[in-house]
Amino acid sequence: MSFINEVFMLSNDFARELYHGSAEGMPIIDYHCHLSPQEIAENIQFSDITQLWLGGDHYKWRALRANGVPEDYITGGRSSWEKFEKWAETMPYAMRNPLYHWSHLELKRVFGIDKLLKPETAREIYEECNAMLAMEEFRGQALIRKFGVEVVCTTDDPADDLRWHRRISLEPFGTKVLPAWRPDKAMAIENPKTYVAYLDRLGEAADMEIDSYAGLIEALRKRHGFFASMGCKLSDHGMETFSSADYTEREIELIFKDVLMGKVPDAAGLDKFRSAFLHDMAVMDAEKGWAQQYHVGPLRNNNEKMFRLIGPDTGFDAIGDLPVAAAGHKFFSRLAMEDKLAKTILYCLNPKDNAVMTAMAYTFNDGTFPGKMQFGSGWWFLDQEDGMRKQLDTLSFMGLLSRFVGMLTDSRSFISYPRHEYFRRILCDVLGRDLELGKLPETEMPFIHQMVKDISYFNAKRYFDF
Amino acid sequence: MSFINEVFMLSNDFARELYHGSAEGMPIIDYHCHLSPQEIAENIQFSDITQLWLGGDHYKWRALRANGVPEDYITGGRSSWEKFEKWAETMPYAMRNPLYHWSHLELKRVFGIDKLLKPETAREIYEECNAMLAMEEFRGQALIRKFGVEVVCTTDDPADDLRWHRRISLEPFGTKVLPAWRPDKAMAIENPKTYVAYLDRLGEAADMEIDSYAGLIEALRKRHGFFASMGCKLSDHGMETFSSADYTEREIELIFKDVLMGKVPDAAGLDKFRSAFLHDMAVMDAEKGWAQQYHVGPLRNNNEKMFRLIGPDTGFDAIGDLPVAAAGHKFFSRLAMEDKLAKTILYCLNPKDNAVMTAMAYTFNDGTFPGKMQFGSGWWFLDQEDGMRKQLDTLSFMGLLSRFVGMLTDSRSFISYPRHEYFRRILCDVLGRDLELGKLPETEMPFIHQMVKDISYFNAKRYFDF
Amino acid sequence: MSFINEVFMLSNDFARELYHGSAEGMPIIDYHCHLSPQEIAENIQFSDITQLWLGGDHYKWRALRANGVPEDYITGGRSSWEKFEKWAETMPYAMRNPLYHWSHLELKRVFGIDKLLKPETAREIYEECNAMLAMEEFRGQALIRKFGVEVVCTTDDPADDLRWHRRISLEPFGTKVLPAWRPDKAMAIENPKTYVAYLDRLGEAADMEIDSYAGLIEALRKRHGFFASMGCKLSDHGMETFSSADYTEREIELIFKDVLMGKVPDAAGLDKFRSAFLHDMAVMDAEKGWAQQYHVGPLRNNNEKMFRLIGPDTGFDAIGDLPVAAAGHKFFSRLAMEDKLAKTILYCLNPKDNAVMTAMAYTFNDGTFPGKMQFGSGWWFLDQEDGMRKQLDTLSFMGLLSRFVGMLTDSRSFISYPRHEYFRRILCDVLGRDLELGKLPETEMPFIHQMVKDISYFNAKRYFDF
Repeated sequence: MSFINEVFMLSNDFARELYHGSAEGMPIIDYHCHLSPQEIAENIQFSDITQLWLGGDHYKWRALRANGVPEDYITGGRSSWEKFEKWAETMPYAMRNPLYHWSHLELKRVFGIDKLLKPETAREIYEECNAMLAMEEFRGQALIRKFGVEVVCTTDDPADDLRWHRRISLEPFGTKVLPAWRPDKAMAIENPKTYVAYLDRLGEAADMEIDSYAGLIEALRKRHGFFASMGCKLSDHGMETFSSADYTEREIELIFKDVLMGKVPDAAGLDKFRSAFLHDMAVMDAEKGWAQQYHVGPLRNNNEKMFRLIGPDTGFDAIGDLPVAAAGHKFFSRLAMEDKLAKTILYCLNPKDNAVMTAMAYTFNDGTFPGKMQFGSGWWFLDQEDGMRKQLDTLSFMGLLSRFVGMLTDSRSFISYPRHEYFRRILCDVLGRDLELGKLPETEMPFIHQMVKDISYFNAKRYFDF
Repeated sequence: MSFINEVFMLSNDFARELYHGSAEGMPIIDYHCHLSPQEIAENIQFSDITQLWLGGDHYKWRALRANGVPEDYITGGRSSWEKFEKWAETMPYAMRNPLYHWSHLELKRVFGIDKLLKPETAREIYEECNAMLAMEEFRGQALIRKFGVEVVCTTDDPADDLRWHRRISLEPFGTKVLPAWRPDKAMAIENPKTYVAYLDRLGEAADMEIDSYAGLIEALRKRHGFFASMGCKLSDHGMETFSSADYTEREIELIFKDVLMGKVPDAAGLDKFRSAFLHDMAVMDAEKGWAQQYHVGPLRNNNEKMFRLIGPDTGFDAIGDLPVAAAGHKFFSRLAMEDKLAKTILYCLNPKDNAVMTAMAYTFNDGTFPGKMQFGSGWWFLDQEDGMRKQLDTLSFMGLLSRFVGMLTDSRSFISYPRHEYFRRILCDVLGRDLELGKLPETEMPFIHQMVKDISYFNAKRYFDF
Repeated sequence: MSFINEVFMLSNDFARELYHGSAEGMPIIDYHCHLSPQEIAENIQFSDITQLWLGGDHYKWRALRANGVPEDYITGGRSSWEKFEKWAETMPYAMRNPLYHWSHLELKRVFGIDKLLKPETAREIYEECNAMLAMEEFRGQALIRKFGVEVVCTTDDPADDLRWHRRISLEPFGTKVLPAWRPDKAMAIENPKTYVAYLDRLGEAADMEIDSYAGLIEALRKRHGFFASMGCKLSDHGMETFSSADYTEREIELIFKDVLMGKVPDAAGLDKFRSAFLHDMAVMDAEKGWAQQYHVGPLRNNNEKMFRLIGPDTGFDAIGDLPVAAAGHKFFSRLAMEDKLAKTILYCLNPKDNAVMTAMAYTFNDGTFPGKMQFGSGWWFLDQEDGMRKQLDTLSFMGLLSRFVGMLTDSRSFISYPRHEYFRRILCDVLGRDLELGKLPETEMPFIHQMVKDISYFNAKRYFDF
């Protein structure tokens, strides 16, 4: 029997019935990812499996480094085959790491390859994959279609002109590709030099000069409207923890002026600025009826040596452990008071925050939409079996699993859609085990089937109004 | 087979033998709850199942709001049936939430109803329950008796005259109803206005004027004595984290004077005051031989909009994430040094604190009483299967499960006693699984049966000296 | 069937095959423990089982106190038999506590005793053990040999002359006994009086006077070289959290001078000093090619009353909850920048830090050695089934389990080696369950067998270069 088989991750008959009966056939809504709109629009053709698999995947890079593979074989100048070979050598050493499951799922679902990747199979798998990648049906758009992806939301900067989204919408290929609003750079005043340069780009996009905080917000409001006109329905913010310090408009303007003059704000100033900025962004989302996402907890660029050598997003980010509760509640309470609380999804990177974030989300539900504020799926370091099970459990025990908008890839890769399959199998296994143990009533199987369909597809479709 | 059946939550024969052989028959000691002494004394009759089930249960309110039900059907003016109907619609969406188990346990154990609650069964269940609630054997006292409750400890303010406890003791109904000491209001100097008003009430109860911290303590000491004379055996404190800052008497008196004059103390002042207050309360408990409880971790009234509309305890509390270790150890160390450390139970709301709180508790056991200081049961957001299992595991792996005083309801409801059953089933399942896996020796079943009886009943009886 | 039997902790056939086929026969490398070099060198003979088991084991002391046993029977003057009897009475009450498994494993593996310890068996077990302990093959060195221990690393102060290590190397008994570098006392400036006394001892050992921080480092460098000449290959640091504050040499010298004059540094000064000290120690380790260990999270001597009565390491330490992420990453980033990052193992005492510490470790792997920086095994309060499973899971899901250097005893006892067996059984059970559930491919059993051997033995041998 293949490693990736019909019952993979499905430990009993209930789980299998739920998965094959309801989860498997649902389309995918990938409401948060980091695919390049340009690569989608240009219908990218991959030169080889190394480019596709190892070109930008910092999960694999971390595993390679930990396995004693020199950087030259990772981000350096070695040949595609040499890099792939190192990855094949590392693969068996990654047993129990999610990469072992993800990689074999991708081999099977994308390429139809059932072999396990290891030194003995490396060459044949390399060649088989490369042969397929040369074909039309392995170009970017076809890969997306292959997995029944109905909607993809990319991650875009407010200054972006969304030209590639426009091109995709003019030359549709069957999957809706929508922009999503990620204004992190517009908040990044901790580095005045790059910030001021960014303001130039943003001002150009908004066709105005930005010389005050009020101007910044005005420019963003214009871009927000433009994004909406291009089909954007959701925003996203990354942060170490929440910011909700009290502030006055005057204080924020003064901090902003200082930044324009190259001055780095102190910690209190940063916190005030972020508090104001995130609040004003949230108000825009509420006014447009978008959903907003908060990704809380990463500690980025921790290895300065490597940051200087190869830059950000190369596998040197990690998990922070700041408190999140007090600041988070204060942030959302203010929005609720002002009747400006949009639909909201909270993600955390530190599993110690699972309970806090779930309780927080459910403290702001207001009866206007099922699951209006909710705890999002296991993300990044937690996007694996253990992380998913814990997310599903905490969400279930402190909230409503049934209203969960489910999985997303958060990925830069064109072939990470099997993670939706992985998630669905685990979801069905969680429910199947409860059924087997009598913790859920077998008589309610029709409702539970519907719950699986909802979490796999319908909840997201309704929630984001796609 | 019914959903709530003989083997519910009992996954193997050992678990079943332990539960039915030893746990099931034990009386209940509900040593911490929020039942209204007046409602007990007056032998409350419920107008309908909506009043009983949905009248004050913030767990259900949170689920309703999250399911998209407008506030009007929750705390608003809709009819009993309309509210119940919304709850019945929400019930299936609460699968995997503890409410799904609790509610069906209550339907079965209180009303003998085996049906699952959902829209199709809503009307018949509503009518069946209401018909029963009109009968004498469904009034407050009978409901308590039905579950074999031997002792109930309510939660009472030091200023309370305990008139309803007196009346109950004069008209006994078979269950001991004792007051418990909860002086949170006497510590709440963060709001001078309500605090000063409270001091008036407390002074009246203690028949003295309170114009100094020393006076406050004197008044509380009088009330403490009065509570003892009424059978009180334990105290309880709620807090975000421990306070154990160093202070002098003079500092505390100055802070107190400021509060009397309407001044809100700063953070350091608050911490010093709480440190002094909690210490002085702990000394009283030690001198009386009471047990003291610390409930650590809630973050209250987080949704200011709803707080203004419908007040506290309405489903907008959540989980805090302050550190607890350093301040907690310092607090108890001081008491130990002074030989004033009472029997103590530590509860935490944030599961990240399970290990810290358990290690802390076992750092102050002194050989004077088995389980003198211990880690308390899963509470509030953690009062569910996952929370209970984790509490039992951490307690087991870092302390002595055998000496655990077990479950309490912490509830405002007259029909939440099936939570003791729920806890006992899970306890037996935990032990049963260990037995099946050979982690506990089968030859010791007699001892394990006794352990189950102890945790279900005898430990609490001995510990609190009921 | 005995409680400790062939399948103990092994829940399926895969687990059993892995354990008996590969784990069981591997030698032990106990790369971190607290055995007394003197007791090893003098080939200690134990007067009785009470001395061996209860003479210094703070785990057992905590359990005894929690079970209501007076101190007189624990660290006080009661007879050996009286103390043992109390322990036998407590044993059944410790069911589910790791002591229950550890103790019976030790009875079986050290003494061949299959009986469960309880009041009824206390006397016979006491006598059987004592009779054996009188024999040559139960002296210290024979006990170590009995468990196939290839290497033991003790924990030694830089001022130590390692005379007992020298003696052992001159009179070898089949197990390599190496010193390990633990310079905690050289960092402990928070108590100037004991610190200055320590500097005298250290200066004497290094044959120089220490009157500056530069002098301190010079002296330590000499001792570091001496330790290396005696076979030392690894260091170890204990701390509540990481310190990585910015500092200048001048600042550190001033703090040092103040301490020499008896002045206690403030919190910021302490943090700067520790930052400098730990950095300079890490540089030495990198230069020698040693491995360094960081044990993060204990909160020590929390019960001041008992500390005054019976001193440190007597069962009154607990778990702290300071943040570790930001300071930790900054610390290692600086070392990486300077190309002075040694092989590093991170241990945490608070399970909330598992994910943070694992992600941190894998942020600094640099491809120079497989598993160069890694997350260490469950330690102290986490050295039990639940702690081990969580450590193995977090390590697996965020790192490379296959490169794990595995278990250590961290123990003061001559008979705690069955903890390696305990760990190996759990490791095999973890892998066996994955195999049974199809999460690992059965076809790769040969590789998985090798992984078990690696984690049990070969990884440590290669990593530390023993």
